[in-house]
Amino acid sequence: MIDLITTTIPPLDETAMRAARERLDQLTKPVGSLGRLESLAIKLAGITGKPHPTFPSKAVIVMVGDHGVTAEGVSAYPQEVTPQMVLNFLSGGAAINVLARRSGARVVVADLGVAVQLPEHPDLIQRKIRLGTRNMALGPAMEREETLAAIATGADILAGEVDRGLDLVGTGDMGIGNTTPSSAIVAVITGQPVANVTGRGTGLDDAGWQRKVQVIERALAVNRPDPTDPLDVLTKVGGYEIAGLVGVILEAARRRVPVIIDGFISGAAALIATELQPGARDYLIAAHNSVEIGHRVMLERMELTPLLNLDLRLGEGTGAAIAMHLVDDAMAIVNEMATFADAGVSGPSERA
Amino acid sequence: MIDLITTTIPPLDETAMRAARERLDQLTKPVGSLGRLESLAIKLAGITGKPHPTFPSKAVIVMVGDHGVTAEGVSAYPQEVTPQMVLNFLSGGAAINVLARRSGARVVVADLGVAVQLPEHPDLIQRKIRLGTRNMALGPAMEREETLAAIATGADILAGEVDRGLDLVGTGDMGIGNTTPSSAIVAVITGQPVANVTGRGTGLDDAGWQRKVQVIERALAVNRPDPTDPLDVLTKVGGYEIAGLVGVILEAARRRVPVIIDGFISGAAALIATELQPGARDYLIAAHNSVEIGHRVMLERMELTPLLNLDLRLGEGTGAAIAMHLVDDAMAIVNEMATFADAGVSGPSERA
Repeated sequence: MIDLITTTIPPLDETAMRAARERLDQLTKPVGSLGRLESLAIKLAGITGKPHPTFPSKAVIVMVGDHGVTAEGVSAYPQEVTPQMVLNFLSGGAAINVLARRSGARVVVADLGVAVQLPEHPDLIQRKIRLGTRNMALGPAMEREETLAAIATGADILAGEVDRGLDLVGTGDMGIGNTTPSSAIVAVITGQPVANVTGRGTGLDDAGWQRKVQVIERALAVNRPDPTDPLDVLTKVGGYEIAGLVGVILEAARRRVPVIIDGFISGAAALIATELQPGARDYLIAAHNSVEIGHRVMLERMELTPLLNLDLRLGEGTGAAIAMHLVDDAMAIVNEMATFADAGVSGPSERA
Repeated sequence: MIDLITTTIPPLDETAMRAARERLDQLTKPVGSLGRLESLAIKLAGITGKPHPTFPSKAVIVMVGDHGVTAEGVSAYPQEVTPQMVLNFLSGGAAINVLARRSGARVVVADLGVAVQLPEHPDLIQRKIRLGTRNMALGPAMEREETLAAIATGADILAGEVDRGLDLVGTGDMGIGNTTPSSAIVAVITGQPVANVTGRGTGLDDAGWQRKVQVIERALAVNRPDPTDPLDVLTKVGGYEIAGLVGVILEAARRRVPVIIDGFISGAAALIATELQPGARDYLIAAHNSVEIGHRVMLERMELTPLLNLDLRLGEGTGAAIAMHLVDDAMAIVNEMATFADAGVSGPSERA
């Protein structure tokens, strides 16, 4: 666990990236004309250390937890929806199930902090740290030891998936109220005013949005999280599923598995992970630009440009699952296109 | 042919759109939280007249033609690349072959005006109007009768594909030099200065770009195309493959087949098609936002928002093929997700 936070994350493999670029430039298309598919292919080469990697084994890891702060009325949905949605994930009916199937990814569901006991299910990873966080408007959401345990649990789950076969991972989340801690995290880490990084979550009206901003401001005043200590921020205004995703991200980076970061909650986890380990940033692929206004602030902080702009605001890893199409497209280009030499196609004219 | 330009295109099916919206709002996710996937699903319902359509039969139709204006040095690549790339399409090695395979679409290649005779090939539709356009810097690129013939040919090819089974079509193009007529078309139709809608094509340097702008300005001065007569614009500064795509688009709209518009050259065709038949606009899905600066101007004129922003500038229909993933994702959501009632998930709280 200490290792996870202190071990140096390996740099991208420059040799593999150069080989990928050279291959791309020999393919029958103007140099660079496939834009971000090409830069994605090069990044994936650098992450994996393979010039032409493929990603047959994919998973979206959905970390689930509840939030005591929902007592303050920060969400449009009641807390009972969290366990209901876990059952929906397990029966295959949620958006993430549909989109992950379409992208050839399995869905891995882990309970890190749902506020009720869930029934046994062969596909549910039960690693509950606590029955939901404490209400951060009144005091710290978690204890530091719980935060460390949740990060370690996330890393352990990632490691278990690698053992099952994992070439590419997407992050996902479920937890009624979890845009509230995510806004709090981005506000503290970036120093932005709370109102600038707080959105409407699953559908708050104006009064609900104002209440949410006030609750977050109160939580920051009560807890005074230290922006230079990411674990302190995560502990005081985060959540178990967010901490679990921090572990997923750091362990994936350490093992050179590319991580597709979904939306706002996954972004909060990525923000903490990259504050802890700046080298993890190179292993992240930003799936999409969420409707949540704080998401853009996070992505700018991490210097990540999202692949998709589909006005998503669902979470669950849905954007990550969609972005997996683009990963497979990028690698199909590298692996399947003809070269100029193969196809007998002329390059640019001398005068150009 | 006259019919194609004068027959009213049917409006979107409001009943099917309402049914699709109602279905989406019953699914286990906050209302509207899948953003543009939801609006895409609703649009597809309106186009097809089916609340829950599926798109098993897909094609990217790649129209090919050469451009006499390449004599002015407007492209980084020599004209011989056009037939070389046709052979590459036919042997399956081009980017569009790879990406269409990934999206489950067939690639249909049609020669409407390549400057050399191509060999017989079972997969090549030979419907050449002429061996390349005339040099538009010296006079009209095409004759009006040729323009009408190319449009009719495109419509005929689309109709033939419908006979083979076609639920969704993407537009594609190949033709060295064809960003030049596309920039000319958008300049005339929108009244923008040529320099504002002219990009670097496959990779011009600064001097090449300036030459390209001057060539287009000369073509507009010599031909004086009438912006209120889209066929005049297409005839004087267009091309055979662009006219062919106009036919594809209008015939697809008439038959209620959704059309994914690729990049800049496809956009020029869509611009002419929608100037001829404003009702066709509702049948179009903009795949992506090209690097070519004139593309955004076209999309604004047509009030279309692209799905992807991947800095593509290849053409061939590559962006359209990628966007097909999103069409299938959108319809999988409608067709496969559980409803709140099915899954026993609560809706928003009363107070929200």
